[in-house]
Amino acid sequence: MNVFILGPAGSGKSLLSGSFASYLAGEGYRVKLVNLDPGVLELPYKADFDVRTRFTVEGIMREKGLGPNGAILEAMERLARVSLPRLDADYVLYDTPGQLEPFLFRDAGRRIVGSLKDCCCLFLGDLSAPRRNLLGFYLYALTARYTLEAETLAVLNKVDLLNREETEMVRRLMENPAFLLEASASLQDEMNLEVLKVLRSFFPPQRIPLVSAKTGVGFDELLTLLFEVKCTCGDLT
Amino acid sequence: MNVFILGPAGSGKSLLSGSFASYLAGEGYRVKLVNLDPGVLELPYKADFDVRTRFTVEGIMREKGLGPNGAILEAMERLARVSLPRLDADYVLYDTPGQLEPFLFRDAGRRIVGSLKDCCCLFLGDLSAPRRNLLGFYLYALTARYTLEAETLAVLNKVDLLNREETEMVRRLMENPAFLLEASASLQDEMNLEVLKVLRSFFPPQRIPLVSAKTGVGFDELLTLLFEVKCTCGDLT
Repeated sequence: MNVFILGPAGSGKSLLSGSFASYLAGEGYRVKLVNLDPGVLELPYKADFDVRTRFTVEGIMREKGLGPNGAILEAMERLARVSLPRLDADYVLYDTPGQLEPFLFRDAGRRIVGSLKDCCCLFLGDLSAPRRNLLGFYLYALTARYTLEAETLAVLNKVDLLNREETEMVRRLMENPAFLLEASASLQDEMNLEVLKVLRSFFPPQRIPLVSAKTGVGFDELLTLLFEVKCTCGDLT
Repeated sequence: MNVFILGPAGSGKSLLSGSFASYLAGEGYRVKLVNLDPGVLELPYKADFDVRTRFTVEGIMREKGLGPNGAILEAMERLARVSLPRLDADYVLYDTPGQLEPFLFRDAGRRIVGSLKDCCCLFLGDLSAPRRNLLGFYLYALTARYTLEAETLAVLNKVDLLNREETEMVRRLMENPAFLLEASASLQDEMNLEVLKVLRSFFPPQRIPLVSAKTGVGFDELLTLLFEVKCTCGDLT
């Protein structure tokens, strides 16, 4: 199975890629790791294929005299044309660019995901962010799902940084639809309700694991969800 | 009115900021321009306030030895703390960071938009992108709307790069709900229909102008929509 680790910058994609790979290996699976982020300086794991062997954002900045914005766009154009090695494994984990946006909107993401069979995306949110913005997290996950046209699981990361009370509060927020309305009291209520219904049908609260890439909390639950996706897709061969 | 020009990298935010400002000035309004992108190298307009006088992404890369990913996040932390000058004008146009994602998910966006009254966001999509990804465009616009909690108009830019046939095709796609279903035949149909309903209630096709930041096509329509937002918000004083 090809598993893409997606999420906004700072959501912990690289750390989760490495630690979830170790967890899967510990469970007896053959695992490979692919780094698709040409802008990262250091990785917390050893990649089996690393796109930085082809190009880096900093290299493009120097080579073309571009600023960071322009170089990231150019890097995404190049990423869309990279031919990835076929890796033999039970799970291939793909760590994706630091910022998800250009991966989605410059077409590299869809080309790469679309070229592989048996794909699933994990969309990470950052529980430790000053304002958790769960609504934005769900909607951005939906953006990724429809852009990449692949099954997408919403995953909330960094639960290790919350104390027990905060964790309970997050669980209550996820289970009680009212959180969306409260979060956006300034917007029109009827529309909020419709948005809420859509988001809950895609991301039911019981299917959003709270995990920690640092401690491995929630990885069992995550693996169970990956099994379910495999079943739903009919790939249980 | 404070107008934030949002959109993914490459959607034409800076060009539209400059050319729409000129258009508004030509219509007799007092206009000011603010650049909030610390990563841009050159701007096609003269800013009345430019965040790069405080810091730049490249400066942070050098200063802190960070890669582009880390420097962009650090720049967003700093942006969240910048105190913007109060500018006296009928319209203040805010050109936003090259990539929208960290502006939304690192809280700088909400802090800045939340600190101002009488705000409206224009969310730009790129009609010339190899794959137009209208679904992703709508969903990302909705992400911005709920994160920033501000009225958001969806605007499709670069219509000058389409020929007449392509323009007609885009209009038909926007008006015919089936486009969403066709675009994602691989995903579950029932859910698609629900998503579609939500998106159409937020962004009805007749309220999405096709504009050109380059030629000024569609600017009259855009200004009319801004008037409507002003009326709805009750700020027609």
